Amino acid sequence: MIHPNMATMLAVIATDARIAPDRLDRSLRGAVARSFNRVSVDGDMSTNDTVLALASGASAVEIGERESAAFDAALAEVCVSLARQIARDGEGATRLIEIAVTGARSEAEAHRVGDAIACSPLVKTAVHGGDPNWGRILAAAGYSGAEVEPERTRLWFGGGDAAIQLLERGLPAPFDRSRASALLREDPVLLRLDLGLGGGSATIWTCDLSAEYVSINADYTT
Amino acid sequence: MIHPNMATMLAVIATDARIAPDRLDRSLRGAVARSFNRVSVDGDMSTNDTVLALASGASAVEIGERESAAFDAALAEVCVSLARQIARDGEGATRLIEIAVTGARSEAEAHRVGDAIACSPLVKTAVHGGDPNWGRILAAAGYSGAEVEPERTRLWFGGGDAAIQLLERGLPAPFDRSRASALLREDPVLLRLDLGLGGGSATIWTCDLSAEYVSINADYTT
Repeated sequence: MIHPNMATMLAVIATDARIAPDRLDRSLRGAVARSFNRVSVDGDMSTNDTVLALASGASAVEIGERESAAFDAALAEVCVSLARQIARDGEGATRLIEIAVTGARSEAEAHRVGDAIACSPLVKTAVHGGDPNWGRILAAAGYSGAEVEPERTRLWFGGGDAAIQLLERGLPAPFDRSRASALLREDPVLLRLDLGLGGGSATIWTCDLSAEYVSINADYTT
Repeated sequence: MIHPNMATMLAVIATDARIAPDRLDRSLRGAVARSFNRVSVDGDMSTNDTVLALASGASAVEIGERESAAFDAALAEVCVSLARQIARDGEGATRLIEIAVTGARSEAEAHRVGDAIACSPLVKTAVHGGDPNWGRILAAAGYSGAEVEPERTRLWFGGGDAAIQLLERGLPAPFDRSRASALLREDPVLLRLDLGLGGGSATIWTCDLSAEYVSINADYTT
């Protein structure tokens, strides 16, 4: 039962910085929006989500205007690390999937597209089976409700030099199936979708869907 | 890849009635809204959905104002029968689940609640495992976005005299676990949720989620 808003979790983050409550609150909300609220394991949202940030001030290091960007970045890094661990630790998961959506009309639309892909059982089973079925990824983007124009859409698996492109502006790019399949068996699995429409981007984390997920949740009795 | 709008299917319905195209179109739209568009297997929507209704007029029976209610009912019956078969035939499904939502503020909200329950992997695995986990059903209703007030909500498994109540206005009703579990192993499984808020109702069909679903979709290669 793990899905954005804010996945199922009780998170407590502590710092010894000296920081005003309203500044810490702002920093935490920003970090949560791009970490815990961008995780999905199975689309089932819990009612028990809590994240707390506590600042003791013990270090006597004051976080003022000048330090706030560095503090925000550090807090976001911790939250993203925890969020990734939540997805990787999903019931029956064998690997983490990171979905980077770029080129959307807005960050909200990028999030929406990434969320649809992350919640698609067909995408998650395809990754589990190492099947480079890019049609399922594109279909999820298409039904997300965000603006998607196939003739502008590009898709890659993997990161850096190892990345391979599967789709170039709506047309299938010739690719090595066994290499693509191997990239889906790495941990984490990296999927990058560029919509070619604007400057909105978002990264979402999920995991593959295995038969073990079913066993765990069918056999679990309250 | 089966979800409302209108699940993944090519349906052709033929009649030998003599009926004006616009009347047939209206009748078909009404029937589809409450049948094919109320089916979900895995929440993955296809781009290839088509439903056609053809009228040959061969019977020379004219469908006028007086006959249209009977014609609408007959067409809806055919569509609902086909829709139920689609859900029952979902990948790896071992039984059909029928979710009847009543007492919503509107039909649209009833549909929304039913859809959230039908799309919940946790509900679908609980049914698969025969686990009378009513909390998962309530959680899905709660995150559907429709108005839900726990203290007005009631839930039953099964139909007719065999039905047992699990929830009475937000409070767990004492129930026989083995009977409840047995009702989740029947085919179809009947779930009835009354929201106690208004006159909106909708029935949604889905299926249980089995490990076989994962095998089929992880091993399938395009």
